[in-house]
This record gives sequence, C-alpha cells and structure tokens, in this order.
Amino acid sequence: MLKRLNDIKLVTSIGAGPIGGGWAAHFLAQGFKVNAYLHSEDEIDIFNSIVKTAWVSLTDLGLAEGASLQNLQIFTNLEESLKGTHFVQESAPERLDIKQDLYETLGRIVPIDVVISSSTSGLTMTEIQQKCNTPERTVIGHPFNPPYLLPLVEIVGGEKTNPDVVSWTADFYKMAGKSPLVLKKEIPGFVATRLQEALWREALHMVANGEATPADIDNALINGPAPRMAVQGQCMAFHVACGEGGMATNLDQFGPALKLPWTRLKAPELTKDLRDKMVKGCAQMAGDQHFEEMAEDRDKKIVAVLNAIKSK
Amino acid sequence: MLKRLNDIKLVTSIGAGPIGGGWAAHFLAQGFKVNAYLHSEDEIDIFNSIVKTAWVSLTDLGLAEGASLQNLQIFTNLEESLKGTHFVQESAPERLDIKQDLYETLGRIVPIDVVISSSTSGLTMTEIQQKCNTPERTVIGHPFNPPYLLPLVEIVGGEKTNPDVVSWTADFYKMAGKSPLVLKKEIPGFVATRLQEALWREALHMVANGEATPADIDNALINGPAPRMAVQGQCMAFHVACGEGGMATNLDQFGPALKLPWTRLKAPELTKDLRDKMVKGCAQMAGDQHFEEMAEDRDKKIVAVLNAIKSK
Repeated sequence: MLKRLNDIKLVTSIGAGPIGGGWAAHFLAQGFKVNAYLHSEDEIDIFNSIVKTAWVSLTDLGLAEGASLQNLQIFTNLEESLKGTHFVQESAPERLDIKQDLYETLGRIVPIDVVISSSTSGLTMTEIQQKCNTPERTVIGHPFNPPYLLPLVEIVGGEKTNPDVVSWTADFYKMAGKSPLVLKKEIPGFVATRLQEALWREALHMVANGEATPADIDNALINGPAPRMAVQGQCMAFHVACGEGGMATNLDQFGPALKLPWTRLKAPELTKDLRDKMVKGCAQMAGDQHFEEMAEDRDKKIVAVLNAIKSK
Repeated sequence: MLKRLNDIKLVTSIGAGPIGGGWAAHFLAQGFKVNAYLHSEDEIDIFNSIVKTAWVSLTDLGLAEGASLQNLQIFTNLEESLKGTHFVQESAPERLDIKQDLYETLGRIVPIDVVISSSTSGLTMTEIQQKCNTPERTVIGHPFNPPYLLPLVEIVGGEKTNPDVVSWTADFYKMAGKSPLVLKKEIPGFVATRLQEALWREALHMVANGEATPADIDNALINGPAPRMAVQGQCMAFHVACGEGGMATNLDQFGPALKLPWTRLKAPELTKDLRDKMVKGCAQMAGDQHFEEMAEDRDKKIVAVLNAIKSK
C-alpha cells in the first residue's frame, strides 16, 4: 500500500552534485521538508552553493506556500537521512556497482510504502534493482538538467517494478510541480535525451565535415527552431504549419522529403501504421482547437519568449 | 558594384504564401517599402491575411521608425513590381523548373546591382541559377518558419555567385533585423533544418516502435531541452554544464557515450581534429566569461522564458 499523496511531507534527496542539489532545491521550493544525504562532509559547501544558486531562479518562478531553505537538513549518515522519509530521490554517481549496492541497502532500510526514485540517465531500473530485496517500489524519475528549472521528469520502472508504483510516481511528481512523462518501455536515453542526442550527433557530423562551426550550430538553434520548440513541440509545429490538413498533409505531401539527405539519420519507413499514429496523436493534442487559433497562440508565445530573452 | 546598405529602401517580395507574406510583413516592420508580387489576383486575400496576422506579432516585437502597412503595394505584374527595387526576396513555389524560369526572367530585367535572394529550403542556388544570365548576384537567404518571428536566415551562394554578394547579403539581413548564418558549403537542409530533421526522424522512429506517442515527443521537448536551447545552443549548453573543464571535459569524459544507442544516428568518430574544433569553437563563444557567469545568465533567461510562456 503506497502513501497518500497528501501525506508526503518529507523527501530524502541522495547526492551532492548538480542533480541531487537541484532536486533538493526543487522540493524545498515546492514546500516539502528535505533531508539531503551527502557521501562526505567535504561535499557540504558545493552542495549548499548549488542549492543557493537554484533558489534564486526558484524564487523568480514562484515559491509554494511555506517553502523555505530552513526546511533543509543535511546528513552524512544515510540511515539518519531516511528516518521518517516519505519519498526518496536518488542521484548517486552513475555507476552500476554503486547504485546496485545502494539499492541493496535502501531496499532493506526504507519502509516498504516509500517509493525510491532514481535520477539515472544512463542505466535501467532492471539493472539497478537487481540486488534490492524490495524492488517493486523502485522506479526511475529522470529529470532534465537543470532539474530546478526544466519541468520534465521521465518515469519508467524496471522488470520487477509494480506498475502501480509507476503511476503513483507520475502523480506525485505532478503534484510536486513537475511535468511527468511515463515511458512505454525501458529505452536507452529515454525520450528527451534521444531527441537531443540525434540533434547533437548531426551537429558533430557537420563540424567534423567543415559544414558548420559550433557557433553556427548554436546560432541556428537559438534563432531558428528552439524558440518555437519551447512553446510547441515538433509534432504540433508541423501539424499547425500545414493548416487545415495538419499532420496528414505533412506526411502525405512532404513524406518523400524523409528520403532526402537532410540529416545523416535515415528515417523509418513511412508505413500506414506510423502515418496513422502521427495523425491520430496530433488530432488528440489539438482537440477542438482550429489550426488558426493554435498558430495565433504559438505566435503570441514566441513573441513573449523572444521579448523575455531580449530583456534579460 | 553593389548598392550601399543605407540606400536600400524598397524591397520586392515574390510569393503569396506564408514565406512570401511573412517576408513582406517583416520588411515592412523594419521600415522598408515593400512591393509584393503575387502570381494572380486570387491570391490577394490570403496574402493580406498572412501580412495582417504577422503584423500583430511584429507590433509586439517592436516596429522600426516609419514602419507602416501603408508602405505595401501589391502587384500581379512582375516587371511592375520590380521597378526601382533595391532588393529581391524570392519565395516562389519549391519547384526547380519554376525557379529556373523565374531566375531567367529576373536575371534579364532586374538591374545588375540588385541582389536576388531565394527563400528556398530544398534546392541549391547552383541549380536555380542555371538559366540566369547574371547569376553572380543571386544567392539563397533561407528563413525559418514563421519568417516574421524567427530571426534566423541561412545564406549560401551557388557556384556562380560572387562571394562578395554573399557577405553583402549577410550584412543587409543583419541591418534588416535578422540573424544571418553564412554557410560554409551548399548542403541539403542547410544547418538548422538538418538539426531539426535529425530530431524529427528520431521522433518518428520512436513512434513507429511504440516507444513514444506524438504527445510524449512534444511534452519531452517543451518541458525538457527546448526552453534551454532557446537561450543557449547545444554546444554552449554542454560547455557550461561541464563547469571549469567545459567542452573538453564533455568530450574527453563523456565521449564514450557517443557510442551508446541513445539515438539511431551513429556519431562521427571523435577524432582529435573534431575534439579540437569543438573545444576551440566553444572557447571562442565563451570569450572571457566564466562558466558560473554563463550558468547564471542561462538560468535567468530560462526563468524569463518559462514565466513568459506561463503568462500567455
């Protein structure tokens, strides 16, 4: 039986790095009490400086009622940091042996109704939970860097994770001010990093081949697709740009462009199944909004984004 | 001998679609007089509605002194639209035969000191200029959609383009409120679309394989990398995230991750040459800014972006 969401008051954040520190700051800003576990006292200064830096932004984004840095306690004894905890966010170093040993310990000492969520970006929960004797409540909750600013958390269980824990975790993160994305499968890089990594590798190819410099890459992103992508994902961007016909027009009319060498990544075969999934997915996102209304909304938000950046 | 930048007062914009209409609105907002050439009178209503929509955003972004919709004249006679023009922005349909015939005509009737710039996204100027008798002043100036909002223009000549025309065109767009990117080579998709296309094809693979839905893709972008990418390109994002060591640490330490299956796109070999180009390029962009200062600037701008989107 998992805890009721409203009963979550104390979060333990494990790890002194930018991810552990960022999570601690985020939960504090959301009004939780936070116990931070650091491996050693030597890490206290760097951890505090990460939290302090994050707090500036979090204040500008708006703190929850009762949110305070006073609600932070730092521990270098793991067991102490877990006493009475209601949720564990683990951001230990990205080494499988370290994580497996840690989950062996956590599995024994953390009460069974407490979810343990890992920030790992490169490992799977199926691997991490192997030595854990209570693996059903272990899950991945992978943030996007910096975790105190970007709302995304990708959630996926391992083979032994209870599916109820996955959906409970998504609900919890949502309540805690995050934008959860529950993965359909354990895939390397999850969704967001895969998208970013494809772009990044194409960028490296261009630099390697003398087609662009790093400054060209960044100029192209900042002044091209990125401000739009911040307000409208790539699927809806194409859907809206194609007017009345939407994604169906995009794929039926420009589908052949997927064969053009516009990137080194070969596109998948545009099967009827893929076409229909894309069209249906975009129709669902659009709901009853007309494309002109969505274009207007996109423009208003892009203008706001460009003006906001200019003013800083 | 090309015109002096300050003497450019009248721009001819060819094309009634979102690109032609978007360019016309952009130049009007920058205080130019604009002659718009439309293929037929049937296109006048749709063209006017594109300009009107764009004008709302352009007003919010800030109009130049003297900017007015009164400075727009619509023509359906090509020769008339070119009388006395100082710059031609061509956004005709994306078909090579249409463009080649058009440039044959433009090459004859547009005075030789006037630059003709094509908005093409899929053709090369080497192809387009083949029937033109004055190809040295023809060039590509490819905007990013919507062209009245996103500042990027990618500039590249064809084989017969005079290199001075390429740099003149970059200077002109800069003066006209755009962010020019001069390409090193004629490559399919230029830079920005290649980056976007790599991401897009990885997205299609994920949907095809049941790893994500279109809503997952857009959620991942909007709440993950995109708000950061709008204020900091991917090269500087990794440079700054790696602290003191910057891009060198990123590539030396995480280089092996380029071999991981985090996308279907295989990375290029991380040669010393590529590493050095990346490190040098990021060092140049950073100048004398310390990474902490750049991280602070990034955070401030991301907060501004997130708050700006929320408020709309």
